[in-house]
Amino acid sequence: MQLAYQFKIPEIIFGRGSIRQVGICARRMGAEKVFLVTDPGIIKAGWVDAALLFLKSEGIKYEVWQGVTPNPRDYEVEGATCAYKESKCDVIMAIGGGSPIDLAKAVAVMATHPGTIHDYEGVDKITNPLPPMIMVPTTAGSGADITRFAVILDTRKRKKMILVSNTLIPDISITDPLLLTTKDPELTANTGMDALAHAIEAYVSTAASFLTDSYALTAIRLIATHLRKSVSSKTNLQAKDAMAKASLLAAVACSNALIGAVHAIAHQVGGMFDLPHGRVNAMLLPHVMEYNLPACMERLGVISHILGLPVQNRSLREKARYTIEEIRNLAREVGIDDKLSNYHLSLQDLESMAQNALQDACIITNPRDIGGEEICEILRHVI
Amino acid sequence: MQLAYQFKIPEIIFGRGSIRQVGICARRMGAEKVFLVTDPGIIKAGWVDAALLFLKSEGIKYEVWQGVTPNPRDYEVEGATCAYKESKCDVIMAIGGGSPIDLAKAVAVMATHPGTIHDYEGVDKITNPLPPMIMVPTTAGSGADITRFAVILDTRKRKKMILVSNTLIPDISITDPLLLTTKDPELTANTGMDALAHAIEAYVSTAASFLTDSYALTAIRLIATHLRKSVSSKTNLQAKDAMAKASLLAAVACSNALIGAVHAIAHQVGGMFDLPHGRVNAMLLPHVMEYNLPACMERLGVISHILGLPVQNRSLREKARYTIEEIRNLAREVGIDDKLSNYHLSLQDLESMAQNALQDACIITNPRDIGGEEICEILRHVI
Ligand SMILES: [Fe+2]
Ligand SMILES: [Fe+2]
Repeated sequence: MQLAYQFKIPEIIFGRGSIRQVGICARRMGAEKVFLVTDPGIIKAGWVDAALLFLKSEGIKYEVWQGVTPNPRDYEVEGATCAYKESKCDVIMAIGGGSPIDLAKAVAVMATHPGTIHDYEGVDKITNPLPPMIMVPTTAGSGADITRFAVILDTRKRKKMILVSNTLIPDISITDPLLLTTKDPELTANTGMDALAHAIEAYVSTAASFLTDSYALTAIRLIATHLRKSVSSKTNLQAKDAMAKASLLAAVACSNALIGAVHAIAHQVGGMFDLPHGRVNAMLLPHVMEYNLPACMERLGVISHILGLPVQNRSLREKARYTIEEIRNLAREVGIDDKLSNYHLSLQDLESMAQNALQDACIITNPRDIGGEEICEILRHVI
Repeated sequence: MQLAYQFKIPEIIFGRGSIRQVGICARRMGAEKVFLVTDPGIIKAGWVDAALLFLKSEGIKYEVWQGVTPNPRDYEVEGATCAYKESKCDVIMAIGGGSPIDLAKAVAVMATHPGTIHDYEGVDKITNPLPPMIMVPTTAGSGADITRFAVILDTRKRKKMILVSNTLIPDISITDPLLLTTKDPELTANTGMDALAHAIEAYVSTAASFLTDSYALTAIRLIATHLRKSVSSKTNLQAKDAMAKASLLAAVACSNALIGAVHAIAHQVGGMFDLPHGRVNAMLLPHVMEYNLPACMERLGVISHILGLPVQNRSLREKARYTIEEIRNLAREVGIDDKLSNYHLSLQDLESMAQNALQDACIITNPRDIGGEEICEILRHVI
């Protein structure tokens, strides 16, 4: 018998200027006081002040928490949870990229569960209801505003823990493309390639379905058309709109079709060297696609058409290779190197990263079975 | 400034055999006793007994309510609400086509609001939270298991009232394609054409968005490919799967992009003559598409490609006309006549129907402005 698909997403609000809806949304969630997780860059850009205005206009109190770094750490969760509990807030909001949003999710977990965040690594470990969550992404994107995932750095083991649970799906996601205009080209490139990895991994995932396929393909088309432009200009609103849409669609697809070996391996590389998640994904993506090719040649061929590549009269294998080559070119053209320079790994580190990748929840839905040997091989391409 | 899109759908469970998840889902909604709305045909087919088994196995009590007819009536809402309140149920479930599901939604409204269901006709009239709702559709499809709409017959005015509200979106929709195998060809044809009307109206709606377009187009492709087969055979499971998927995708699209003049007019015709909703839609659809053509020629052209019609080197107008002709052919081939025979309308009835259609919430997002005269013209084509 065919397995049942389960598909769940937040309520989505999308549009230029939609940040003004944070107040109304918080009210609808029953908020008296909002715990707002963000970072100093977002505050400096003025978006937090804007949001607070709309909270105030609804008579909602707030506590702002900005103690979060890229690749949020386990000890940051402890600090923020302590502040959340002391503040007597009743709704959790994040304005930021994947890091503030993931930290906010981890705070939500620790608000209603005992122990430490490490206890909830893996699939379906979260048992109690979480406080209402409203997420406002400022990058396009991590997709954390949409997904059932949260990723936190285990600082002792220097690896990323992934938490997977339906309860981690926020209640409301508010995407305002105007927020993308204050991001630098490097961040725009990294997060855009992350969204592309979400879309491609979701499309070739063993859990892909009719509910995720069309979103994944639309996201791939939008990113291929608009990422270069978005990286080239802070003010190209058409490109920002398109990338915001793509990030959202890719996130809906990958939260429900789940992802694959790119993310499973990237969590280890990012955890080991504290590197931007999207950049690591971008480097790994073509190599994992090469490895996965025999298992999903047809689907990689479909993508070549979506990308508008000159593949008329080409074989399926050639189409798939065109697709991989185009992804490689895109990463280069937005400024992401093929290889990490100045990083070195001992054989022992390499093997332990491969073993950790095999334990990562993302590996389960990779289209082709993969072992430690093959992961080491892929890692050697990028480090 | 661009308006914000809002997108909200239930949690979706899809797959053959997924009816077995009713118990687990009811438990997750905190159910102690479920109010199960259905109709005698579904009971006879055995689906209610199956569902009750899965409720029992979770230790959940239930009350079955089967007092519902096609085009559910205002007085049926009163009876069912009374039974709901007496039964002390805490979760509302429907297993059925659009009629039991719409009745269940109306009961949910009246469970927590004063007055009668008529007081809640229109957009956003529902102010209080509703009891949790779990819907299991047995047709493909009304889409009521997904949408923010409920349609109830005003028996005094002989017109359908449409209620539109985010709170009418069920919590969980469980689609089991196996349930489609007990439906007769006529119902399969009518409901399939209803789903097609949802997809087409959503795709040309003024509120269409990047979140609804790809779903609408996928639904159109699936219906064009599989509806004839599904009508021809009760046991063609591939066709049932495809139609169940199409119904679901079309419903997600039309609940969020809203619909148009086909539904606004169909609500009046269906209300006046107590006819199957999908059949009336099927008759009106080509005529409304003709009328809308100048406003959405490009999008009707896109559909011609989705339908695989021979439109190479054709103009946009020709492509749009091919699309309309193909929809007309499809309706005929699944056995739906072009015109209602044996029904007659006085000029006064005609004009009052047109006026009521102009008041229907669905008319707002029709791609081309429409007036009473034009609606009368369209009505004369089918009656
Ligand atoms: Fe990612
Ligand atoms: Fe309908």
